[in-house]
Amino acid sequence: MSNQNYQDLLETLHDCMTACNHCFNSCLQEDDVKMMAECIRLDRECADICSYLESAISRNSPFIKELATVCAKICTACGEECKKHQHDHCQKCADACFKCADACKKIS
Amino acid sequence: MSNQNYQDLLETLHDCMTACNHCFNSCLQEDDVKMMAECIRLDRECADICSYLESAISRNSPFIKELATVCAKICTACGEECKKHQHDHCQKCADACFKCADACKKIS
Amino acid sequence: MSNQNYQDLLETLHDCMTACNHCFNSCLQEDDVKMMAECIRLDRECADICSYLESAISRNSPFIKELATVCAKICTACGEECKKHQHDHCQKCADACFKCADACKKIS
Amino acid sequence: MSNQNYQDLLETLHDCMTACNHCFNSCLQEDDVKMMAECIRLDRECADICSYLESAISRNSPFIKELATVCAKICTACGEECKKHQHDHCQKCADACFKCADACKKIS
Repeated sequence: MSNQNYQDLLETLHDCMTACNHCFNSCLQEDDVKMMAECIRLDRECADICSYLESAISRNSPFIKELATVCAKICTACGEECKKHQHDHCQKCADACFKCADACKKIS
Repeated sequence: MSNQNYQDLLETLHDCMTACNHCFNSCLQEDDVKMMAECIRLDRECADICSYLESAISRNSPFIKELATVCAKICTACGEECKKHQHDHCQKCADACFKCADACKKIS
Repeated sequence: MSNQNYQDLLETLHDCMTACNHCFNSCLQEDDVKMMAECIRLDRECADICSYLESAISRNSPFIKELATVCAKICTACGEECKKHQHDHCQKCADACFKCADACKKIS
Repeated sequence: MSNQNYQDLLETLHDCMTACNHCFNSCLQEDDVKMMAECIRLDRECADICSYLESAISRNSPFIKELATVCAKICTACGEECKKHQHDHCQKCADACFKCADACKKIS
């Protein structure tokens, strides 16, 4: 992986982590929290694995491919759930998740 | 800290982490998710810091006291929120949080 | 998974996490730190994924199987490295890693 | 905190996390690993708390101030250790740590 690709990947993971955590926080403040329950659950799953993979990549973990495979799957699941909801934070989160899933697939 | 006290503390943190994560999952499946929003938020905060402190203690981190001080505060806040709700998972979580807050205060 | 199996798995992960972090800390204090470099690296990898999986299981993550597959691989790699070294903390860590790898394979 | 300050803080934490993890990985490959033992230990401590605080800030945790206080202390300790070593990765890590400690102090 070139240094530029590596920096881009770390930034994509970081953007997805912050988008998911922002969506998590925003969903908890919506009127229709019940409708957002799966979104809340998956936002946490996705934020946590993106954060984990960021750290793993930057410490040169020998298991980046395996972790990126799982991360791509979680990002896709979170993006698909977020996409169902019209809240701006959900739509932005879906975009970040799908972009991150693609980036993870490239290294997995 | 004696070895027995150390094992007891790790177990208390572990019990609090699992109680909070179980409560998080259960709250997301309740009918009244909106009423549980702060409980969901604090369950995540508390599970994550307990997990973090467990790892820090077991790797002999030089910052255990400072982390335990923060953990005690988060456990107390989570326990107070959980205590308001009559769900069995909330009441059990409150007990685990208060027990963990006490254990953390002893080393902070 | 029965409740007993679930409790056993959480305990096995917890034991592996603490064994790896204890080994990490002990390796850093050995005379021959250079010889322990890969052990130090893998101890961190293994402690972190065990801690992650513990939390994921207890919050009923939809991705437990995928995470357990990665965890089994990391536990095996850490166990194989630890097994090479005669320090008591390395041998105990290897045992905990292999036991945890087996437990993870059963749910992956 | 303005949105720009918030973005800057997340970036500073991210830079410190990656610098610490890069330093951790590089130290493990140095000839003089024994001399780097405390650097390796503190790099992990610092990378982990920066990663934790990044996530906490982005999910609007009610405990940002307390966590930032601990993070500032850990960044300072890691920066002081790194500064003792002439390796390029240590010097760069020290800079990132001191910058991050300052940023954390502003919100703590």
